[in-house]
Amino acid sequence: MEFSDVLSKRRSVRHFNTKLAVSDQDLHALLRAAVSAPSAGNIQPWRFYIVRSPEARERLAAALPQRWATSAPVVIVVCVDPRPCAARYSDRGEYLYSIQDTAAATQNILLAAVDRGLATCWIGAFDECAVADAIGATRPITPVAVIPVGFSAESSAKPARRPLDEVTTWL
Amino acid sequence: MEFSDVLSKRRSVRHFNTKLAVSDQDLHALLRAAVSAPSAGNIQPWRFYIVRSPEARERLAAALPQRWATSAPVVIVVCVDPRPCAARYSDRGEYLYSIQDTAAATQNILLAAVDRGLATCWIGAFDECAVADAIGATRPITPVAVIPVGFSAESSAKPARRPLDEVTTWL
Repeated sequence: MEFSDVLSKRRSVRHFNTKLAVSDQDLHALLRAAVSAPSAGNIQPWRFYIVRSPEARERLAAALPQRWATSAPVVIVVCVDPRPCAARYSDRGEYLYSIQDTAAATQNILLAAVDRGLATCWIGAFDECAVADAIGATRPITPVAVIPVGFSAESSAKPARRPLDEVTTWL
Repeated sequence: MEFSDVLSKRRSVRHFNTKLAVSDQDLHALLRAAVSAPSAGNIQPWRFYIVRSPEARERLAAALPQRWATSAPVVIVVCVDPRPCAARYSDRGEYLYSIQDTAAATQNILLAAVDRGLATCWIGAFDECAVADAIGATRPITPVAVIPVGFSAESSAKPARRPLDEVTTWL
């Protein structure tokens, strides 16, 4: 799909077709998109947990306030391993770069999903420890984003954006 | 350009053709891409400073350790206004969501640049106060990424990525 169409078609989807599965091929495409993001010092602090089996989805559902999220056939939990960034770049690496790098990877997943006709939502409001327990991630590996992935069962307009001149300063 | 080509062609470029300018049309396209990113509660905590005049570029150059960055005809400084996120989501909004949201916008800028034949680099290593002073951003608006934008004067291979199975767990 044309990049401009991918951008304009992306939505935060919260209702999924529960009968359509996401193929391994699609999931690999999303993961390849994720890791093509840049990262500070090419450290690649991201870790991806692909939650797909009924048991794993049930555990994750119990840990998430957004019960609708696990109505999607797959949920990708994006985690950060802050250790190498912290070791090389100190606090700025741990609290800024590693969060930015995993966010760039997350954004690539959202866009790659649109490119393949899939729908997603970026979820950030959850208890990190509960989600880590549910997926078996051990400290200091920390979940930073939860992304249900499936086929949309809704149609929604893109929430309005502020005019560019409200958020831009030309120097 | 096809989305998959945009992803595979993106590089971190540090040498720019100093004779080719970036058009207003291109800059607006990058900004529209930036603000099409999702944000927690659609708060859109991003602010963009377009550093283009010789005087502004000179001030920014003096504030950046990466002197090469201002050899690009334009530099976009992505800033965050953490206040609305902090007000609505407390610490998690201030230190996670607002950083993620601005990182997603930054990633969209990098990709939209490739789509238009432009080159960029995501710079994170700088003194926030010095850069804020150089662009006239007042606290608590904080620079989180500096993106030189121009036409590439180098060709470089994409740094290698770890194999997917090293960073992925299937559940």
